[in-house]
Amino acid sequence: MPGSLISGAGPHVLNRPAMSEPESIAGLSVVRTVASLRRAVDGWRAEGASVGLVPTMGALHRGHMALVARAREACGRAVASLFVNPAQFGPNEDFARYPRDEAADAAMLKAGGCDLLYAPGVAEIYPPGFAVTVDPGPIAALLDGRFRPGHFQGVATVVVKLLLQARPDLACFGEKDYQQLQIVTRLVRDLDIPVRIEPVAIAREPDGLALSSRNAYLTTEERARAPALNRALVAAASHMRAGAQPRAVEAQATNLLLAAGFAKVDYVAVCDAATLEPLASLDRPARILAAAWLGRTRLIDNVALAPRG
Amino acid sequence: MPGSLISGAGPHVLNRPAMSEPESIAGLSVVRTVASLRRAVDGWRAEGASVGLVPTMGALHRGHMALVARAREACGRAVASLFVNPAQFGPNEDFARYPRDEAADAAMLKAGGCDLLYAPGVAEIYPPGFAVTVDPGPIAALLDGRFRPGHFQGVATVVVKLLLQARPDLACFGEKDYQQLQIVTRLVRDLDIPVRIEPVAIAREPDGLALSSRNAYLTTEERARAPALNRALVAAASHMRAGAQPRAVEAQATNLLLAAGFAKVDYVAVCDAATLEPLASLDRPARILAAAWLGRTRLIDNVALAPRG
Repeated sequence: MPGSLISGAGPHVLNRPAMSEPESIAGLSVVRTVASLRRAVDGWRAEGASVGLVPTMGALHRGHMALVARAREACGRAVASLFVNPAQFGPNEDFARYPRDEAADAAMLKAGGCDLLYAPGVAEIYPPGFAVTVDPGPIAALLDGRFRPGHFQGVATVVVKLLLQARPDLACFGEKDYQQLQIVTRLVRDLDIPVRIEPVAIAREPDGLALSSRNAYLTTEERARAPALNRALVAAASHMRAGAQPRAVEAQATNLLLAAGFAKVDYVAVCDAATLEPLASLDRPARILAAAWLGRTRLIDNVALAPRG
Repeated sequence: MPGSLISGAGPHVLNRPAMSEPESIAGLSVVRTVASLRRAVDGWRAEGASVGLVPTMGALHRGHMALVARAREACGRAVASLFVNPAQFGPNEDFARYPRDEAADAAMLKAGGCDLLYAPGVAEIYPPGFAVTVDPGPIAALLDGRFRPGHFQGVATVVVKLLLQARPDLACFGEKDYQQLQIVTRLVRDLDIPVRIEPVAIAREPDGLALSSRNAYLTTEERARAPALNRALVAAASHMRAGAQPRAVEAQATNLLLAAGFAKVDYVAVCDAATLEPLASLDRPARILAAAWLGRTRLIDNVALAPRG
């Protein structure tokens, strides 16, 4: 797994001293250590509140705000975490250039009703000698796992840690990262983590493009082409409902994307909605997922597909 | 990993209905589901008690009772778990013949002051579709890990589950399984599991043999030879303190064991007490560990070794 990035993350991610916690940024309380985070959460719980967690890698947008709103709606208190997790980036991926603007994120969270930002440094999450990995099992080798080896082991490990650090009653995850959501659901079930996982629907631009922090990488021309990804998935779902064969639908959508100017299509896949195994026929809840490249930017999206009945 | 045993564990491990819980066996309350376990633990915590967990595979002896006593001493309440974990046995290991006598275990726990026995069936721990594995990292490939591939992944996964199921304040582990103890300590630290791990010294027979459920496998003749394992380690520690070289000490102890009638020596190893990496010199806390076979029975033992100076 791409753990080598952990030690190479540089001095900007070092922990600040715990003495100064909580800081306030843009009017939002910010903690950087597990101890301070737990102090805040335990305090709220002692007051009878329940606590919702929204794990993020920052570069927040309206999609994240929907997660915060859901956490607040379901619980008395909402905590967002901000951690660009080196362990889930491959050596040739975009860890170094991933957008980082903590002050802007804090301001958006404050405006969205978030109660606390947990923004640990890399050394708080991966102290010297850190060695444990959580492997989600076969689901992690499918789809994005085929193209991003080690990615979901990195995601699983940090999500387990964040859940056990914050000990929330509920944690919100967006359906945009649908495979991640299914993996987190499985982690919580298989490891008996005492938390409820709440899925939140994808937030989209008016033209259908799924909101993503990585959309910021797109050139004007790429941005104009990007909605073809969602269009191809919506069309694929329609073909599936009309009785087309999954493998034919996948091939057709792939061709659509290439014709629309995507440089490369990692996959378009009609899957069992829970296991993400390839679906042979529409006899159960399904999901159509895709990952494709516009220039240097890899976009993902997915749509639901109800069973025929 | 040897997970194939999970599904092959047979009907004797099916869960009994939750409706009847808690049962009472030998006067001890017994629960078999996570829900019942949490109900009991949450109830004690609401009364202000703290809770100590003693994970076991049954076949209890005085060594386990020392763990229960420590849990009771440190916490108001002690829970023992009894689960012969198929995932930590290799396909050619002793899962099928591992000694099982729940009623005797319950009676011993009751006499030892234990408050509750958690004895789940395999389906409660590994429900259908179970897929997640916790990998402790490089330490799991050393020593016993070299001879029992997958063993410590199986241990790590079930220990994480038991800790998150019971949510104790403290969990007691014996130093007899010293590598397991170091791995559990690392798991708790690296995954931020909110529990304190309490090591408990090895309980021994008067002739030095470490207590073990597997001692029951020994023939009379093997039992008479078994104390040579501890004698060899005590001698090795003494040679180390006298300034001998670790690799020479290991070779000498191995020869001693073979001369004493052990059929095979998996390892004798002078190690860093925390990482279990081979030690070059006695400049830090060390441990000498060994695994060796008497007939069909594999015995392990270890002794501490303080740094020189």
